[in-house]
Amino acid sequence: MAVGLVSLVGAGPGDPDLWTIRAARRIEEADLILYDALVDVEALRRATRAQCFCVGKRARRDSVPQETINRLMIRAARQGRRVVRLKGGDPFVFGRGGEEALALAMAGIPFEVVPGVTTAVAAPALAGIPVTHRGIASGFLVMAGHTSEAVDHTLRSIRPNTVSIVILMGVGARAELASRLMAHGWAPETPAAIVCNASMPDAWTWTGRLGETGAAAAPVGAAGVLVVGEVVQIREALNATSVPPVAPGNEVKYAGH
Amino acid sequence: MAVGLVSLVGAGPGDPDLWTIRAARRIEEADLILYDALVDVEALRRATRAQCFCVGKRARRDSVPQETINRLMIRAARQGRRVVRLKGGDPFVFGRGGEEALALAMAGIPFEVVPGVTTAVAAPALAGIPVTHRGIASGFLVMAGHTSEAVDHTLRSIRPNTVSIVILMGVGARAELASRLMAHGWAPETPAAIVCNASMPDAWTWTGRLGETGAAAAPVGAAGVLVVGEVVQIREALNATSVPPVAPGNEVKYAGH
Repeated sequence: MAVGLVSLVGAGPGDPDLWTIRAARRIEEADLILYDALVDVEALRRATRAQCFCVGKRARRDSVPQETINRLMIRAARQGRRVVRLKGGDPFVFGRGGEEALALAMAGIPFEVVPGVTTAVAAPALAGIPVTHRGIASGFLVMAGHTSEAVDHTLRSIRPNTVSIVILMGVGARAELASRLMAHGWAPETPAAIVCNASMPDAWTWTGRLGETGAAAAPVGAAGVLVVGEVVQIREALNATSVPPVAPGNEVKYAGH
Repeated sequence: MAVGLVSLVGAGPGDPDLWTIRAARRIEEADLILYDALVDVEALRRATRAQCFCVGKRARRDSVPQETINRLMIRAARQGRRVVRLKGGDPFVFGRGGEEALALAMAGIPFEVVPGVTTAVAAPALAGIPVTHRGIASGFLVMAGHTSEAVDHTLRSIRPNTVSIVILMGVGARAELASRLMAHGWAPETPAAIVCNASMPDAWTWTGRLGETGAAAAPVGAAGVLVVGEVVQIREALNATSVPPVAPGNEVKYAGH
């Protein structure tokens, strides 16, 4: 029996309309889909007849250990099944895509990477915030906010008040993250944004100053990104025009979506 | 007459299979498409009956000035035409998407942002290089390599030998960029990669050390990214296994693509 292909697929920020065409095809043709908590489950069920298992963290259940996920993928592929490992955003932006690729390669399982729309760029964009802007930000740094050591390590690597910063998985710890940024020399007046559930009907956006970020009333438990830097002001400039593309507390919305 | 919607759409790294579903729909339904040089023109012509104009830089022609692009979009929208402004990668990662959004908003033209797969993440990923990897890189910095002042400004903001660096639009200037990185304290032994035409049939990848980057024989005039950091070694580790997913000098390729 032929070994099945494993596809490490990015699902984008949430809305299945932002899946890539290749991702949609892999999902449709899969026999087994192991998906993360950030993926839109109802859209997934509509798009495939594959067996679907959530391996991410959910209410009252921890995420499935990485070793187990690797074993499930390898076993199914050896049974000749086409496996999709579906991750929120892009599979290689955090989310351990590299570790899974190495585990598959070492087990002799053929695999591919299907890049996705990364939430690090799309969540700010859908809220009207470009991560780069001529004369304002000549680059951007993406980091994860869920472990303090990694945050300190990364913040030590960057000079304050320079490039835009996008922090994934940091909304819950926003107060601590804002304090750490300020401790590392970022000005409390730096524009900052929180964008939760970007691209979804319950999208939620807050903008303000870094010093006020801890007090922002973000939805409890929502997935989201923190953006820190002058680029946040582009959203404010867009909202100040006659055609505000960005409703307060929501993403860009138009007829035809 | 109703004003037409302008969609600022990301086309991803090249292969139209990596367009998002929304991007494909906007392209299909458009009346006018203004596209950048990095977009796959043949795929575009197959996907739409819209009028298509390249406004990017091409052989023997400079790119159309930004002011003119803005004026063309605004005029067509006022004529009731649906306009797609199609950009390689993501519209808000360099490429002046923010400036176009502001111009449209100030002219009272309704617009939306359709995020795309950014080449900054996808080009390394398709070459087997995750921009983050647990224990190796806790973040990544994306910058553009086409102007020296911006490069120096951005490099001054980052401590050498920390997070992964991805440089867009820097393949032509790779020798100068490598020298600048080393002048800013990056070790010549740092792993480095050049990935050109990612996702396309003529994809080309080189890996080596930062100090050798200037001498790498990259295809002349090809679009590509430079990656600098320990994560480049993941590609080498994948290639060393029994199922090399990454053919030398090419991206991940499998039956079924």
